[in-house]
Amino acid sequence: MSRSPLQRAAEDCALLTIAGSDCSGGAGIQADLKTFAAHGCYGMSVLTALTAQNTMEVKGVHPIPPSFVGDQIRSVIVDVKPHAIKTGMLCNAEIAAEVASVLQAYKHAGSTAPIVCDPVCVSTSGHTLLESDSLGVLLKEIFPICTLVTPNKSEAELLLGYLDEPIEISSLDNILHAADRLASLGRCSVLLKGGHFVSTMEDVRDFSGRHPSLQVVKQNIFDENMEILQVVSTGLEPRKLVVDLLYEQSGQTTAYIRPRIESTSTHGTGCTLSSAIACELAQGNSLRDAVASASMYTHLGILTAQSIGKGNGPLNHLHSVEKSTVPRRTSVNPYPFTYLLIKHTNEIWKSYVQHDFVKQLGKGVLSRESFVYFIKQDYHYLKYYSRAYGLLAAKASTFPSIRSATEVILNVLKEISTHTTFCESFGVTPEELEATPESTATTAYGAYILNVGLQGDQAKLIMALMACLLGYGEVGLWLKKEASRSGSGIVLEGNPYKKWIEDYSGEHYQGAVRMGIESIEKLVENDGPSPERLQEWKDVWRRCTELEKGFWDAAMVQAT
Amino acid sequence: MSRSPLQRAAEDCALLTIAGSDCSGGAGIQADLKTFAAHGCYGMSVLTALTAQNTMEVKGVHPIPPSFVGDQIRSVIVDVKPHAIKTGMLCNAEIAAEVASVLQAYKHAGSTAPIVCDPVCVSTSGHTLLESDSLGVLLKEIFPICTLVTPNKSEAELLLGYLDEPIEISSLDNILHAADRLASLGRCSVLLKGGHFVSTMEDVRDFSGRHPSLQVVKQNIFDENMEILQVVSTGLEPRKLVVDLLYEQSGQTTAYIRPRIESTSTHGTGCTLSSAIACELAQGNSLRDAVASASMYTHLGILTAQSIGKGNGPLNHLHSVEKSTVPRRTSVNPYPFTYLLIKHTNEIWKSYVQHDFVKQLGKGVLSRESFVYFIKQDYHYLKYYSRAYGLLAAKASTFPSIRSATEVILNVLKEISTHTTFCESFGVTPEELEATPESTATTAYGAYILNVGLQGDQAKLIMALMACLLGYGEVGLWLKKEASRSGSGIVLEGNPYKKWIEDYSGEHYQGAVRMGIESIEKLVENDGPSPERLQEWKDVWRRCTELEKGFWDAAMVQAT
Repeated sequence: MSRSPLQRAAEDCALLTIAGSDCSGGAGIQADLKTFAAHGCYGMSVLTALTAQNTMEVKGVHPIPPSFVGDQIRSVIVDVKPHAIKTGMLCNAEIAAEVASVLQAYKHAGSTAPIVCDPVCVSTSGHTLLESDSLGVLLKEIFPICTLVTPNKSEAELLLGYLDEPIEISSLDNILHAADRLASLGRCSVLLKGGHFVSTMEDVRDFSGRHPSLQVVKQNIFDENMEILQVVSTGLEPRKLVVDLLYEQSGQTTAYIRPRIESTSTHGTGCTLSSAIACELAQGNSLRDAVASASMYTHLGILTAQSIGKGNGPLNHLHSVEKSTVPRRTSVNPYPFTYLLIKHTNEIWKSYVQHDFVKQLGKGVLSRESFVYFIKQDYHYLKYYSRAYGLLAAKASTFPSIRSATEVILNVLKEISTHTTFCESFGVTPEELEATPESTATTAYGAYILNVGLQGDQAKLIMALMACLLGYGEVGLWLKKEASRSGSGIVLEGNPYKKWIEDYSGEHYQGAVRMGIESIEKLVENDGPSPERLQEWKDVWRRCTELEKGFWDAAMVQAT
Repeated sequence: MSRSPLQRAAEDCALLTIAGSDCSGGAGIQADLKTFAAHGCYGMSVLTALTAQNTMEVKGVHPIPPSFVGDQIRSVIVDVKPHAIKTGMLCNAEIAAEVASVLQAYKHAGSTAPIVCDPVCVSTSGHTLLESDSLGVLLKEIFPICTLVTPNKSEAELLLGYLDEPIEISSLDNILHAADRLASLGRCSVLLKGGHFVSTMEDVRDFSGRHPSLQVVKQNIFDENMEILQVVSTGLEPRKLVVDLLYEQSGQTTAYIRPRIESTSTHGTGCTLSSAIACELAQGNSLRDAVASASMYTHLGILTAQSIGKGNGPLNHLHSVEKSTVPRRTSVNPYPFTYLLIKHTNEIWKSYVQHDFVKQLGKGVLSRESFVYFIKQDYHYLKYYSRAYGLLAAKASTFPSIRSATEVILNVLKEISTHTTFCESFGVTPEELEATPESTATTAYGAYILNVGLQGDQAKLIMALMACLLGYGEVGLWLKKEASRSGSGIVLEGNPYKKWIEDYSGEHYQGAVRMGIESIEKLVENDGPSPERLQEWKDVWRRCTELEKGFWDAAMVQAT
């Protein structure tokens, strides 16, 4: 699936994080890079400090020399222009000042990349990650160049305390006041995260009643008209909520509310959220939408996390991505799906396209009985085959797909008339053709295709039609190639079946083969199958390949 | 889609890289973490050195104090047990020795995690990344605890030169000799990468002829019986090949051959390959299979890369993953797909389930004409509805799904007989019911469902059947809830439509609703839709919701 939304974004969207390292992988640039990847973005990371830590504790911190932090940032931005920048742990005042100065210069030079600052002060496990003399640098040098700052309760309290406006945040009113003050003092928008205290739906209704301009975004909360979901799941409104408050520079305030989760998988939550917001902003979303998507991403990261480590474990950063089932189309192999089908059925495919029937036909030694038996049965098969394309037209939803199915039917009808002439050259009259009893092999194959058409969608029916189209194309090309190779025994001149070989190796038929291959590759590209669906398609392809082989087996039995 | 292969792996599989940082994101632990994520693994990373670099050059290196490297590794392994370990840039002899000593102790303590060593010596841009006095530590202290070592041509030459066995690798015979020597001296398996020199298919055939025990794995190379792909694409066998040679401790040798790609997107290729191998080993694959998958992953990473930066750009690490279209099921919201459908059609859904028809019915003031009109048309609709389940049974492929479709039909047939009794209580005879002309709204809705059933697969037909099932469930629950709320105006006692409300809010019908919701959630969980398919499902759901509303609109017109 070459251009899923994930991959499209990856090509257009470079993100830079400037933060610390968490060697245990749950927080810091590790969480940032995972979040960038999950959003399909290209991640870059400048390190400000290393920590020796795990899910239980921070054992040590190794700050990077400020000048080397600056060198890293400059190395990145002179070469790859980030579409958004996120800052995390800045460790001390010197590093914070260096980061501020390089980013200010970058902004001065014309960069419009939004900057999201997660003012990391203390780790989830309680370790101080920012020396207190750095708060002034954050507030005065970094916040003003930021699109958004994302403090949690204690960070907001620390910052306002530093500004001599001490506050203890314990209500929605406090949150609003704190966000307002920080936004005003820092000249940036503020997302004040409410993960560290509990609200109820009553609190929200009450608060919202007193602030009529407040926008409330409900996340994973069942709304009116979702009674069926409420009853089926745990019941009514969740009792405990988390409320994050976004205070924008415009003064617009948005509350994001969602059920509170009791979980120990919260290591790196702040890093993840701010990185996800940066991704959403880099992709051109508004601040309000960016926060909505990013907080759902983070919420689901906690909800779907498996326990890792003995303390506060990491989020699941990969809940929103899946493995592709088919490789992307590339210049080296533009047909990865067809390649995969053939590889998957290698033996049975070979026993079909290099069947004794084919080899003997190529050498001109195939018995007349076998060939005549085959063309009589093929006549019946082509009825099923053209009807299947009629069914395909009935399943179509666009005029081009109705047209292409119909053109195949017209081609088969034309083929039938040359078929009839061809048969006459082998002494088989049209009446005899029509009167020939249908073999079991023919019924099995023809009815199987129509059954797939009844059961599945267009895609599945197309899969059932491919073994015939592609297999005869392969046979035609192979015979032609072997005929040109001395010593192969395959000959065209003097071969009673020369016309048959020429038909299937000829430009007209091969053009149809190319169109068929292109159509299934496009189908997979546009509608990438789940593992289950891919398996279904492979099964249909394999069954048809077997039935094709059976068709020639039956013809060969005639010669014995 | 809660348990795609990617996510399953993420929960079971922790990987540790011990390497340098490339702030520009293409190599080092950044490439490693991206590769781990793309393989669905949980990534952890211990830093040995930072670089200030970009796609053009390495501007500076900041080595980490060896003791702090050791602290990081110990922090990780006392808490989270990695399923595989990869080492990359080790910078200098002291760091290499520290890494060796901690890993040796870990192995001594019983760890069986495979270790893959990428003996990084020089960057793609030409910068020395390992001081030469470290080669001895690599060879004597690290290689012997490794499952695999992955040198490229120049690294293999440096290592053998250090061991006084100078060699210049320029042929497949050289490669084999070098791999053999390194494996023997380092007591580990060796993958010698041939990216830095060109081979041809002739070379491979010739080499393979002289080494009959050699296994040759063709990657992205068209095989015999793939004539149709060769003709359709660029043609014959690729002229220039890359050959990687795996020399296992057992003596078994495998050559991985694939087309050579001319690309500047090769920054971090070695890091990516060794990380991908570590992921495959951690997931329990054999060394031979691990190398096969990992080299295809890396090959496609180069092939699908978009140009990033001004020099040798990074690979595309995300070519093998896609964004999920539906969030995973969680305890907070076990019905993410149904939630999404209702959110997606919020207004039309509300205008259906809180239709004036419903409100008036709940208040007991709905005109008799409207209700009678409705139940007569509903009688016709239920014919389509049960036939649609017949079609669903015909599309099924398992007995349980045949059974569940059939049970719905039997329920409808039973409903029809109570329906008839109910109609009689409103003075409508069975003959009158049958003779009522079908309205346009009924035909539109009924025929639409059958058309979806003709056109699509089981899943699409199920989507078409849900708006009815779930909507009436919602109406029933909502009316029941409102009836229990004083002042809502909705009443049960004395309401001529009491039985109707009780039927749809009752346990029997609500049980069917729960089964319906569960079945579509399972469907999405097992067969996660592509964006295109999800859009199709949403369109069908929306259309049916509109047609349901139209059905009641038509009934209300009767009252005017």
